[in-house]
Amino acid sequence: MHNFGAGPGALPLPVLAAAREALRELPGAGATILEISHRSARFEEILAEAEANLCELLGIGDAWKLLFLQGGARQQFALIPINFLAASGRCGEYVVSGYWSRTAHAEAGLAGGSAVLWDGAGERYRRMPRPDELAFPPARAAGAAYVHYTANETIEGTQFRELPEFGPVPAICDASSELLSRPLPVERCAMIYAGAQKNLGTAGLTLVAVRRELLERAAPSLPAMFDYRRLADAGSMLNTPPVFAIYVTLLVTRWIRDDIGGLEEMARRNRAKARTLYRVLDESGGFYRGHALPESRSHMNVTWRLADAELEPLFLDQATAAGFMGLGGHRSVGGLRASLYNAVSPASCRALAGFMAEFLRCHG
Amino acid sequence: MHNFGAGPGALPLPVLAAAREALRELPGAGATILEISHRSARFEEILAEAEANLCELLGIGDAWKLLFLQGGARQQFALIPINFLAASGRCGEYVVSGYWSRTAHAEAGLAGGSAVLWDGAGERYRRMPRPDELAFPPARAAGAAYVHYTANETIEGTQFRELPEFGPVPAICDASSELLSRPLPVERCAMIYAGAQKNLGTAGLTLVAVRRELLERAAPSLPAMFDYRRLADAGSMLNTPPVFAIYVTLLVTRWIRDDIGGLEEMARRNRAKARTLYRVLDESGGFYRGHALPESRSHMNVTWRLADAELEPLFLDQATAAGFMGLGGHRSVGGLRASLYNAVSPASCRALAGFMAEFLRCHG
Repeated sequence: MHNFGAGPGALPLPVLAAAREALRELPGAGATILEISHRSARFEEILAEAEANLCELLGIGDAWKLLFLQGGARQQFALIPINFLAASGRCGEYVVSGYWSRTAHAEAGLAGGSAVLWDGAGERYRRMPRPDELAFPPARAAGAAYVHYTANETIEGTQFRELPEFGPVPAICDASSELLSRPLPVERCAMIYAGAQKNLGTAGLTLVAVRRELLERAAPSLPAMFDYRRLADAGSMLNTPPVFAIYVTLLVTRWIRDDIGGLEEMARRNRAKARTLYRVLDESGGFYRGHALPESRSHMNVTWRLADAELEPLFLDQATAAGFMGLGGHRSVGGLRASLYNAVSPASCRALAGFMAEFLRCHG
Repeated sequence: MHNFGAGPGALPLPVLAAAREALRELPGAGATILEISHRSARFEEILAEAEANLCELLGIGDAWKLLFLQGGARQQFALIPINFLAASGRCGEYVVSGYWSRTAHAEAGLAGGSAVLWDGAGERYRRMPRPDELAFPPARAAGAAYVHYTANETIEGTQFRELPEFGPVPAICDASSELLSRPLPVERCAMIYAGAQKNLGTAGLTLVAVRRELLERAAPSLPAMFDYRRLADAGSMLNTPPVFAIYVTLLVTRWIRDDIGGLEEMARRNRAKARTLYRVLDESGGFYRGHALPESRSHMNVTWRLADAELEPLFLDQATAAGFMGLGGHRSVGGLRASLYNAVSPASCRALAGFMAEFLRCHG
């Protein structure tokens, strides 16, 4: 099957093979990856290599701390205001560009003062804001604890072509459905986080990269598992981390570096994959209608409707029968969506494009 | 290798084989277990079967909700007071019988009023309290939001032979290192929780069973991921659950039911395994010194020192060379520990007992 699921999504075949092998026996461990202690020398090596590879791929150095956490991006929605807002006396600013950034903003309201810097609801979240729409008035910038935005809206299929800049306001970027799909200008960010089940590995692991400078502003006396500073000081080992999920992410970083050749090449591949599908939408004479406006089109999640919505169930049925899975839109918006995460091959994208062209010929 | 690790620990061979197979292709899914959507029909079946099997093994029915969460027991240490203490105007009562229950109590202090019903520090946490030591004065019972205790102290190696009863005070039981190792009298509990990496599966999943009655007392307006009620209403699917870890737990429940024959038989097996090792301690003429007092000895974690502590590194080295792994005591207390979780075979225990007897002959 060609897997276009929005996450958990496809994983690279070499990663699956190596994960399977580690369930037979992890080399040098005397047990499988599911059975080794998180305090063992073997797991220390795994964690250290995963961290080093991620820092290298992300281009982050000593100014940053990398955390391996649980609970998904959704738990970060709560931890960010608890750590950086509740005790700050400042305001958490949110760019609301779709379902996930709106959900993140809702959590901030529980912890302290929050505000919306930009909201795309009036345009049905079909685009990301332009730089001029994200300019802070100086007084407002001074009162901001941070500004939070979502780099890629998984549900609407919109993406910042370039990450925004916010000057002195610490920018916190939810990069859940795009981290490691392209190089990111980390110098524009104070914190970047992502659930692993899109491009980084398997469900149950959340990566958080945070500048030490921001960490120092975290509130004191938080519950241990919610306290970024304590989690950082404990090297993500305050309690048992998700050992297997971390191992899968290590395998994914090796694959990107060694098999693909790095993030530049990964991005080139992902751009080409997305172009293959957007071309079908653009050349369908209105039969397929993309949701995102062209300048905000996501390279990770392509979303569209059929002009005749009644044909959508037929499209999905025939797609499934033809070996394409995961093409249903998110239950909150319906329609169709093809997620083109790193492990989805260019060949799968060409096959889907072919299927879509054929469906158009039969029903257009 | 014989794996006596304290968690993540050994898993049953049939579980490992089936997990490996699901990394090749999950039957009926068209993808591996790491790549299917948590909203797919196939995963709904997995979750429903895992839930049904767990309810059957635990003996819990409609009065309970079962949650599949992340963050380990340690995250529950924070969520319990946040949900049931902070807004209650009552007191969280704690039985402090060792490292983990002490850690749970420390978290409660951050969220509201807490008190210690019993503390075993004066006796170096060598035993669990007797029933008469846990009796609440009526006025204190009326002011208690709940009473929290740890059924098995993984680090000290102590265990309640019978779970305590607290009458009208809702009892919350951390059963992390013993859940599914024996039948538990759930009628004495309002909530039971456990990290999965001991007897239930792999790291990254936390099981919480909670009575609906207690759920109704949970605080309103909590962050979504910390809100037991919302997590329950969403069927543990507020966001992407740890799909693979849930699948492993499903496999473990099948193994206990079908291969072992149920919890009574599991408990009989575990008692016999523990007896094999405690006999070596008791018959060593003081060469091996068990930490737990006999009436509180854990059937899951056997802890001991050597009378001559300088021999301990040699014991560990020779044990490793002889194929026994995970025997070092927790870094907070040192000494030696053999964890006898469900998947550790009686044959492994006999082999360790033989090694210990031989070490005694050479060095006693």
